[in-house]
Amino acid sequence: MNTFGTRLKITTFGESHGKAIGCVIDGFPAGVRIDEAFLQSELDKRKPGTSKFSTQRKESDKAEILSGTFEGFSMGTPIAVVIFNENQHSKDYDNIKDLFRPSHGDLSYFAKYGIRDYRGGGRASARESAARVAAGAFAQMLLAEFNISVKSGVFAIGKVQSELESKDFDFEFADKSEVFALDKALEASFKEQITQALRTKDSVGAAVFTRISGVKAGLGEPLYDKLDSKFAHALMGINAVKAVEIGAGIRSSQSFGSQNNDRIKDQQFLSNHAGGILAGISSGADIELRTYFKPTPSIFLAQETMDKFGNNAICELKGRHDPCVGVRGSVICSAMARLVIADALMLNANASLARLKKAYE
Amino acid sequence: MNTFGTRLKITTFGESHGKAIGCVIDGFPAGVRIDEAFLQSELDKRKPGTSKFSTQRKESDKAEILSGTFEGFSMGTPIAVVIFNENQHSKDYDNIKDLFRPSHGDLSYFAKYGIRDYRGGGRASARESAARVAAGAFAQMLLAEFNISVKSGVFAIGKVQSELESKDFDFEFADKSEVFALDKALEASFKEQITQALRTKDSVGAAVFTRISGVKAGLGEPLYDKLDSKFAHALMGINAVKAVEIGAGIRSSQSFGSQNNDRIKDQQFLSNHAGGILAGISSGADIELRTYFKPTPSIFLAQETMDKFGNNAICELKGRHDPCVGVRGSVICSAMARLVIADALMLNANASLARLKKAYE
Amino acid sequence: MNTFGTRLKITTFGESHGKAIGCVIDGFPAGVRIDEAFLQSELDKRKPGTSKFSTQRKESDKAEILSGTFEGFSMGTPIAVVIFNENQHSKDYDNIKDLFRPSHGDLSYFAKYGIRDYRGGGRASARESAARVAAGAFAQMLLAEFNISVKSGVFAIGKVQSELESKDFDFEFADKSEVFALDKALEASFKEQITQALRTKDSVGAAVFTRISGVKAGLGEPLYDKLDSKFAHALMGINAVKAVEIGAGIRSSQSFGSQNNDRIKDQQFLSNHAGGILAGISSGADIELRTYFKPTPSIFLAQETMDKFGNNAICELKGRHDPCVGVRGSVICSAMARLVIADALMLNANASLARLKKAYE
Amino acid sequence: MNTFGTRLKITTFGESHGKAIGCVIDGFPAGVRIDEAFLQSELDKRKPGTSKFSTQRKESDKAEILSGTFEGFSMGTPIAVVIFNENQHSKDYDNIKDLFRPSHGDLSYFAKYGIRDYRGGGRASARESAARVAAGAFAQMLLAEFNISVKSGVFAIGKVQSELESKDFDFEFADKSEVFALDKALEASFKEQITQALRTKDSVGAAVFTRISGVKAGLGEPLYDKLDSKFAHALMGINAVKAVEIGAGIRSSQSFGSQNNDRIKDQQFLSNHAGGILAGISSGADIELRTYFKPTPSIFLAQETMDKFGNNAICELKGRHDPCVGVRGSVICSAMARLVIADALMLNANASLARLKKAYE
Repeated sequence: MNTFGTRLKITTFGESHGKAIGCVIDGFPAGVRIDEAFLQSELDKRKPGTSKFSTQRKESDKAEILSGTFEGFSMGTPIAVVIFNENQHSKDYDNIKDLFRPSHGDLSYFAKYGIRDYRGGGRASARESAARVAAGAFAQMLLAEFNISVKSGVFAIGKVQSELESKDFDFEFADKSEVFALDKALEASFKEQITQALRTKDSVGAAVFTRISGVKAGLGEPLYDKLDSKFAHALMGINAVKAVEIGAGIRSSQSFGSQNNDRIKDQQFLSNHAGGILAGISSGADIELRTYFKPTPSIFLAQETMDKFGNNAICELKGRHDPCVGVRGSVICSAMARLVIADALMLNANASLARLKKAYE
Repeated sequence: MNTFGTRLKITTFGESHGKAIGCVIDGFPAGVRIDEAFLQSELDKRKPGTSKFSTQRKESDKAEILSGTFEGFSMGTPIAVVIFNENQHSKDYDNIKDLFRPSHGDLSYFAKYGIRDYRGGGRASARESAARVAAGAFAQMLLAEFNISVKSGVFAIGKVQSELESKDFDFEFADKSEVFALDKALEASFKEQITQALRTKDSVGAAVFTRISGVKAGLGEPLYDKLDSKFAHALMGINAVKAVEIGAGIRSSQSFGSQNNDRIKDQQFLSNHAGGILAGISSGADIELRTYFKPTPSIFLAQETMDKFGNNAICELKGRHDPCVGVRGSVICSAMARLVIADALMLNANASLARLKKAYE
Repeated sequence: MNTFGTRLKITTFGESHGKAIGCVIDGFPAGVRIDEAFLQSELDKRKPGTSKFSTQRKESDKAEILSGTFEGFSMGTPIAVVIFNENQHSKDYDNIKDLFRPSHGDLSYFAKYGIRDYRGGGRASARESAARVAAGAFAQMLLAEFNISVKSGVFAIGKVQSELESKDFDFEFADKSEVFALDKALEASFKEQITQALRTKDSVGAAVFTRISGVKAGLGEPLYDKLDSKFAHALMGINAVKAVEIGAGIRSSQSFGSQNNDRIKDQQFLSNHAGGILAGISSGADIELRTYFKPTPSIFLAQETMDKFGNNAICELKGRHDPCVGVRGSVICSAMARLVIADALMLNANASLARLKKAYE
Repeated sequence: MNTFGTRLKITTFGESHGKAIGCVIDGFPAGVRIDEAFLQSELDKRKPGTSKFSTQRKESDKAEILSGTFEGFSMGTPIAVVIFNENQHSKDYDNIKDLFRPSHGDLSYFAKYGIRDYRGGGRASARESAARVAAGAFAQMLLAEFNISVKSGVFAIGKVQSELESKDFDFEFADKSEVFALDKALEASFKEQITQALRTKDSVGAAVFTRISGVKAGLGEPLYDKLDSKFAHALMGINAVKAVEIGAGIRSSQSFGSQNNDRIKDQQFLSNHAGGILAGISSGADIELRTYFKPTPSIFLAQETMDKFGNNAICELKGRHDPCVGVRGSVICSAMARLVIADALMLNANASLARLKKAYE
């Protein structure tokens, strides 16, 4: 339900317009140096209100660690992080109190629970992703000890899609780009797509590429916790995601085996259509993931919908919304990928008697 | 690991060339009529050796129920199903004993465990999917009580892809087609793709469409067991799958919100780009899933690879292999989708006090 | 690890001398009226510093709900509760920084994690139980809707043990007693045991009886989540508990079947040696549990021990400690029992097709 | 439900009079030598029909391994074990088809599921414990690699209880004793208790002591998977168990801290009232557990009960039943303890960065 992970478990809580959001990170190993500055910098990347390309809600998103650390190191006990909400404009939502906004979770939450916090999407708000980012930052503190890096950026907005091969994506540029663009040449066009959406009271979709480097062969738990299966689970569960590809993804399905197989020479893969995962277990090559975000369902155009009594109605939104939820989605993809790979790393310590013996010494 | 599901749990076991494969289905509610003929018919659909479009390994795949049923009904206790292996040709694998077949799990399994059953892929074999199909058949016995149907078929093989809209897919035709083709007009071309692969000692990819009808709004557990997240987990975990889409999938990411949003009129959705899921919870519309299979990595062409000592080597396979693993994949997609939706249905009984009170009476 | 429960899950966090302790309650059904006064009153019962029979640490233990409720009802989303620590005297622990206090977790935590918060026992402190009590209070809000009550009290302190049969225990008296005494006639002797311990710089053990009334037959999940198994798990996991009995407990093992069997007449059990549980499933009779607490290991007498380098040392404690941890343990036994039975109630909604159908309507 | 364990998971299945019982062991590390003779010898210890002190049902209890091993070693894939039932006398149960046997699970299973296999207790039969014993034997193959031993025996039958201190229990004698007696001097009296029960158509209770030696300090996962909590869970879940004690157990609750605390000198504990567990984590001392079994509820005396329609009835049993279920319970206590400690050992590999690094190399 609200817990993610098998050995490195995060449990998150909080509504968009409630008192606070946060997470509890359980199973985090003892002895990891806690880097609070990194934690905050990851939250700042995701934070709303920093450019016209994201929502104008202003939140400082200051993380407070309540437990689990001592003298700068993790203790093996649960790490609780809380972020208090500061800039709710709940009044913006009064007019949709009884309305189901098109393509939002309003209808489905109401059907499930019979009650919902209509203010800002409640629990279904993108705001919840701050808790994921906080947890992902802790996962990265662990991964850093194993020289594993996780990077994400945007390679498509709307119909504008980078033609670059993944090896040519520029993560350094993306890190400084307001829209996390992986293709320098396309950043302006990406921004133009969003500007057009803003201008027309609309929103637009986007696509994110994630690369994980430095993972040894052997991570992933067959059969139902395969590494690709867990990535798909983690990424498809991000708000607004509608598709996930591993490696060559759909293109693999359109090719012949002789084209798609990754041959090996001199202990190197000659290609990486597999995206770093074979039979659900890491192969030692870079792990490559593509995540596709639908356009933000909150648009300022009038739309036909129904209210909770089943009557036809017109939905006209107020409030502040991301014109392209996939942009900030880039930060969240990294966070989720970090949680998955850190969990896999921990699970792998039990794979063989040889590993167990070393860990038991 | 080898257990799938939260409340309806299946645990599978077995290697391709071991004594038997099978599953234990736990959490299956008491009082469901057991339809053994349906169980066998689903296994027969997946069974190898029935046409030239699948592997020539001959297995009767006769399921034996060892526990959990009494006088034709489920008892609420675990249902164990075993299928004994009959037609192993283990000698076919002697020459690859120390070799990592390209794009197979040989390398990654060896890195993880330091030991592997090289015969027929061992645990990583597609043969394991028979256990999934058996479990999925039980899930369907439960779903039938709630008038929920799950259907799959093939809409693309290699570069030949159906142009039909999903509403025009013909599941009745698919059920009788040797390649489970959803588009009658393309069946011959689909077969030709596979024939070409066979002729050239190659293999080819494919794509499967799955529709789930009859699901009420409200199923799915936010946040980390969202319905789409669980489908992605389940489908990406099938052997050879490299991409999963929900509803309009990648196309959503290429569109504007005004195009992608599903408006509502007279209590009906005017479109279904969401694919029946909103914020991770079913909306009441049909659930639509697309699953993309890479070409079978086992091809009969000579390929560069390495052995387990790191030496360059040439891999030349013998044995019997599916020329297009996505074809039989269609049966497995239905099985996994059934397990997911049955689990969601069970989890939902706890969603609200009102439901709990009814169930407690 | 730090999560308890299967469908009603609580995750707790916090060290004794950290910023805060708290819990996240996940899976709590929507539509339950939230009784904040009850929550606080349960915390107040457990709260330290209210009499000389507990530790003198002064904490207001004021619970703050951060999420999961809306307009006085639960929403089905996670309920986060935080209690800030106020009255840490961390200096009291400076002298035992490198020492393993006898019969405390210092040694075992250090062996496990290589790092520990020595101040007030850190995560292993009895203070953590406040989070359990908060979670248990929410469970009781749910149980109240099903007319299920859970009551606990103390029936033995040190060697002074009540001779009453369980049916004669006086829970109303216990609720007002400073030592939660179930036997009015023994309250003074109970207090005298504790006073003697205080006087001699010592501590003393105690035993708690818990009764759960109003549970229908049918709750409990065989085989490895049997109701008695879950109670044993829950109660043995409370700090300082060393034994748990169900129903007649050890006395059952000393008797013949003809004495121990509970016969039935006119739809009534003629005895309740089983303690309300048969084959791990509730029988409809009252559930009766006995939980045994060792004396608080913190005593003010000088004791031989070793430091973390393995040297012999003398441990002389400062600080504030419960002279009889079992007294406040009574409140915690109720909390844990509530969590178990509420979880079992939720799990039972999936037991049969008939129940599922009612819940799905 | 029917799965036990966190990282080393067993899932069992089977009814007493169904086709077979068995288990799937998942998470078992690769590279452990499989000792089939030991597996069978453990099953033979538990096997019925070997003396007049157990039931006369004759079963060969021959275990067949279906998967998970290769050339004499585990592969890291699930190990399935099946035991076919051979000697069912289902007719013996025709007369109790609609009756609830006193102190059996008949009533509670029927209330839960609305259907039950009345033949031989169905899933609630003691026969199910063979699957536990098989799984426990595999756990021991792993523990042997870490020089951890687990031994159990009987220290009380009915009112006859050994006065020996636990250090004087004779496990070698117990291993050869028909009633697994830990106290040589009492074996005859133990047998006399059972003989008396047989003579009077009755049954009798018993108590089992378990010692685990060779466990390093540091195993156990706070807070809700504490080692003592898991042992309590595992042992209380064995059929007929009504009480569990860790270390000094109830006696601890009757003592003062100065008596109960285990002081340390020269790196040795001067006593072991804690039973080898401090704050839920192993201390390095022997782990000592006591498990109390009620008398077999199946007795041959006429007893008042009711039928499933609520009518008063007299229950007169036929069939073959253990006169003292606690005797064979000794073998099951070892099996469950092995599963718990092996699981804890595996979980511990993730406790700290230092351990993880060693396991990742």
